[in-house]
Amino acid sequence: MTYRGGTGAAGGVPLDQPEPLTSRLVEGDLVISPERPTDAWVNLPAVSGSSLIFDLEQPRTTDMPILPVHRPGYAYFLYRRHVDNYEPATLGPRTSASGVIICMEHSGTHIDALCHQADDLKLFGGVSVAEVEGTAGFTKLAVEEIPPIVTRGVLLDVPRALGVDTLDPGYAVTIHDVETCCTRQGVEIQRGDVVLVRTGNGRFWSDPPRYLAGPGVSAGASAWLAAKGVLAVGADNMAWDVLGVVDPDLGCHLPGHLILLARHGIYIIENLQLEALANACAYQFTFVCTPLKFVGATGSPVRPIALVPRLP
Amino acid sequence: MTYRGGTGAAGGVPLDQPEPLTSRLVEGDLVISPERPTDAWVNLPAVSGSSLIFDLEQPRTTDMPILPVHRPGYAYFLYRRHVDNYEPATLGPRTSASGVIICMEHSGTHIDALCHQADDLKLFGGVSVAEVEGTAGFTKLAVEEIPPIVTRGVLLDVPRALGVDTLDPGYAVTIHDVETCCTRQGVEIQRGDVVLVRTGNGRFWSDPPRYLAGPGVSAGASAWLAAKGVLAVGADNMAWDVLGVVDPDLGCHLPGHLILLARHGIYIIENLQLEALANACAYQFTFVCTPLKFVGATGSPVRPIALVPRLP
Amino acid sequence: MTYRGGTGAAGGVPLDQPEPLTSRLVEGDLVISPERPTDAWVNLPAVSGSSLIFDLEQPRTTDMPILPVHRPGYAYFLYRRHVDNYEPATLGPRTSASGVIICMEHSGTHIDALCHQADDLKLFGGVSVAEVEGTAGFTKLAVEEIPPIVTRGVLLDVPRALGVDTLDPGYAVTIHDVETCCTRQGVEIQRGDVVLVRTGNGRFWSDPPRYLAGPGVSAGASAWLAAKGVLAVGADNMAWDVLGVVDPDLGCHLPGHLILLARHGIYIIENLQLEALANACAYQFTFVCTPLKFVGATGSPVRPIALVPRLP
Amino acid sequence: MTYRGGTGAAGGVPLDQPEPLTSRLVEGDLVISPERPTDAWVNLPAVSGSSLIFDLEQPRTTDMPILPVHRPGYAYFLYRRHVDNYEPATLGPRTSASGVIICMEHSGTHIDALCHQADDLKLFGGVSVAEVEGTAGFTKLAVEEIPPIVTRGVLLDVPRALGVDTLDPGYAVTIHDVETCCTRQGVEIQRGDVVLVRTGNGRFWSDPPRYLAGPGVSAGASAWLAAKGVLAVGADNMAWDVLGVVDPDLGCHLPGHLILLARHGIYIIENLQLEALANACAYQFTFVCTPLKFVGATGSPVRPIALVPRLP
Repeated sequence: MTYRGGTGAAGGVPLDQPEPLTSRLVEGDLVISPERPTDAWVNLPAVSGSSLIFDLEQPRTTDMPILPVHRPGYAYFLYRRHVDNYEPATLGPRTSASGVIICMEHSGTHIDALCHQADDLKLFGGVSVAEVEGTAGFTKLAVEEIPPIVTRGVLLDVPRALGVDTLDPGYAVTIHDVETCCTRQGVEIQRGDVVLVRTGNGRFWSDPPRYLAGPGVSAGASAWLAAKGVLAVGADNMAWDVLGVVDPDLGCHLPGHLILLARHGIYIIENLQLEALANACAYQFTFVCTPLKFVGATGSPVRPIALVPRLP
Repeated sequence: MTYRGGTGAAGGVPLDQPEPLTSRLVEGDLVISPERPTDAWVNLPAVSGSSLIFDLEQPRTTDMPILPVHRPGYAYFLYRRHVDNYEPATLGPRTSASGVIICMEHSGTHIDALCHQADDLKLFGGVSVAEVEGTAGFTKLAVEEIPPIVTRGVLLDVPRALGVDTLDPGYAVTIHDVETCCTRQGVEIQRGDVVLVRTGNGRFWSDPPRYLAGPGVSAGASAWLAAKGVLAVGADNMAWDVLGVVDPDLGCHLPGHLILLARHGIYIIENLQLEALANACAYQFTFVCTPLKFVGATGSPVRPIALVPRLP
Repeated sequence: MTYRGGTGAAGGVPLDQPEPLTSRLVEGDLVISPERPTDAWVNLPAVSGSSLIFDLEQPRTTDMPILPVHRPGYAYFLYRRHVDNYEPATLGPRTSASGVIICMEHSGTHIDALCHQADDLKLFGGVSVAEVEGTAGFTKLAVEEIPPIVTRGVLLDVPRALGVDTLDPGYAVTIHDVETCCTRQGVEIQRGDVVLVRTGNGRFWSDPPRYLAGPGVSAGASAWLAAKGVLAVGADNMAWDVLGVVDPDLGCHLPGHLILLARHGIYIIENLQLEALANACAYQFTFVCTPLKFVGATGSPVRPIALVPRLP
Repeated sequence: MTYRGGTGAAGGVPLDQPEPLTSRLVEGDLVISPERPTDAWVNLPAVSGSSLIFDLEQPRTTDMPILPVHRPGYAYFLYRRHVDNYEPATLGPRTSASGVIICMEHSGTHIDALCHQADDLKLFGGVSVAEVEGTAGFTKLAVEEIPPIVTRGVLLDVPRALGVDTLDPGYAVTIHDVETCCTRQGVEIQRGDVVLVRTGNGRFWSDPPRYLAGPGVSAGASAWLAAKGVLAVGADNMAWDVLGVVDPDLGCHLPGHLILLARHGIYIIENLQLEALANACAYQFTFVCTPLKFVGATGSPVRPIALVPRLP
């Protein structure tokens, strides 16, 4: 298993000459596991004293929005109930209840693993799809390789920067929008950051057609963020990109997926709930996201959080 | 949704007179979500400067250990492959792959929600099972009510305290063992802590029969921890308790589940991987665990982490 | 396991005085299994010499119509592919492929078991729901108790009798319609028959909204058929009854489900494809339907067939 | 969709020169569906007057035997219970219950579609795997192409012919055994038959390790049956072949799968329950088996039946 950071593969590294993965360990994504000793320390953003925790996950229900390609999406079935195993005379007062979860990796708030996207049948770093794709999922760049993410997070509140409540359906966030956010908010994107883009779409979670018709991020803004060397990006919509639009330059749908995951090794987090964070004007924070290690999988549901230091 | 802490329900509060939930907000578990404004700050343990991140989740595979009652356990199926949607002439160079996950809530490293256990058909706080158990799972005390957990964590390394490599199969950790650990390690359990008990069983994850036959925590030690007012407990075995043993006093299997979840509102985290943390002698740390909000469910797979400040 | 026929419970038998099940073995539903010796013979309709086989099952795809209450419906995932296990040098030329099916019992062409419906929390025959409903499904009247069905089938082609192509959305087939069909087609409903009602809705299978908005059978016609002592009924729509309509007498939706399954022990088969059978004017035939023995389940997907003897 | 019979591909037809599928319509497998008019009649075996129905399906439970490669096998979860939707004041007396089924295609009593096996990455008839294997399963030779099977069935009771109760674990039924059965039972295998081989293993269904260790059919006997031009074969064991044995000539496990499915287009039915049929000495019968049309799938659970005419 190779742990990797998000900065070494910053924009400009051509696909056929990726920087060696082993040289890309950076602050914020070092993980200690039994299989892997470590000799490095991680510089964490300061999280001490009083902080607020913002919960960035949308609730998971059968009715939540889902891309058609990821149907049947999600379902939870409670089948063992307390009443079924209550036999106090012989088993005592304790009973148990449990259920089963069926979910596509890309349902609800989730993170995309690098193996989720390919560029001319190559994964990030030039890994040939044919060599790693199989019955048990992917043997490289699958979701279990994503380290726990604990790093600086930055929120870009695009509607606020543009003076609107929420971006219109189909709107594509531009480079100029992103730069405007940075300026107005007084933040600067740094290598290793996780950048969360608010479009305002998160408030439509309970209205799937409207949610799916929402805005997204342009290919240009995706490339701009990739060039900054971020570790991951995220947004409050279904697919980061605007759905249903073919990029004229790249010739594909979801150009941000190609640019970020396949060409720069940058994770994408989707269906975030960013309203409370934006309401608090919390533009910089410690971002924590711990993808589950579904061995071989192309993504994982996650519950990211933002730790916001108390203002002095 | 009611957010709750782990200290107010400390041992000694009788079941029929639980402390009101609303008074139990404590440091470490405050969460901001769009539905719920807040007026409180949280005192986080210091996490600043250089830290190590320890990954406490076991990898998830079809072959991992599972309790018979939770079969069929877990499976991941990759069904959409890159090669299937590669049509460069019309769709450009980008392709996508994805799969489906089937898992019981109580498979792999996971956390138990309070609704998972009942005491004479009452959930924690006296909630009647009959009123909250149904087709969509539980309407109260389900997993989506667990806040993101960011609080002080304490590791109790029982084998080290006893001078052995790993506890024997069937061994039940006693109150004396726990107290010995605290003394030797120089730690004190405090209200709101998450206490992780290492039995050494985690190293048998790839040997399901041996893993399932492993040691656990006694009812006495569970009650001792409950009396300390901890927020959650966890261990490196299948069910915290020793499997297959009826507690003579309580008259049931898994007495710790009754004591902790149903009687004291304390979460249990199971199947942790604690070897690296123990090897580093990291006995106090910031513990982060973000259960997924599967609405109505009795538990969630999790990937807890321990943030260990760099030694000065 | 008790095998039962459909005639003994014919209309008029009050619910609280059901005919004993053991006396109700009739032609067409006797089954020999290892657990159950038999001393009876079955009179089958003549199926000899040349016959045509009509396939009455709709194809099963992720996109097929499904009732919201039965979401997520159905999905098939191929995950093990031939290319994955092709290693001719060591394993020879043979490879294997396989997948996983997720389906609600009541998806696609399927049969309802008697436990699927209750009348004031009593199943057919006065069985108390509380005594048979649990973690493993139903311990009585579940789908594994349905014997293989081999009996006389009758098609009632309502649109043809009414001189239309297909019945309008929301139309409820009346007793008069059913009687008109019998007269025009020259058939008489007999005890033990399986009666298939064609509404013409089957041709909309690939248009889920239109299919779900389709016609159905009235409570009156359901009661009329129950009084004839049929073994089972079926139709080419989602739920036999008209969806979304409350019966003024019974005070519930889906009155036919109450009358047929819960009050008379008559199975319902849904989502049949009857177009070819109707085109051939095949109004009487040998009907074969073999529900799968999912122990405890409330229904099963089926592929019923009609064997039509060659005309002399 | 092409319907096919089992006789045209009789033994001796080399793989690279398969008989055209369109010329292979035979007695017993003609099906009328809306998409496909027909101009042929089928000669069915006589099924008239009094007959017995033998149920050849094993019951389906979570605990039933399963090949490791097909784990997690099968599970049924009842999640919607009558008690959940009982609101007589507003909804009347009717309530409904339902669940969800998760199953591998090759769990329990099931039939293998032709696409389940390949020979040097070619399916039966020389179809290239690369052209038909994909996200939605197989576009050719998948289970929905299997017509309803209504044809003559023959039981070969090998233990009885050999004078034993049941064949030993690991025993491979030989050509001589099969010929001995035919002679002793006075039956002759004909083109288009479905041949069911009893090993006696079916009685161990509730003892998975013993069941999986059971006997099977040799490559020689598989080839002998293929040469007879049968439509399908079946047995009362997990995989027709003996598990865990590499065929010295073909260089692969499960040689019968290669010979029958991939080289001769003959379906295999597994995990049959043949005890009652054997006890009745019913060696010839009408065999009915209706695979579900899971579009693209490599197999289907089935409940085959044998219709045994009353002795005169």
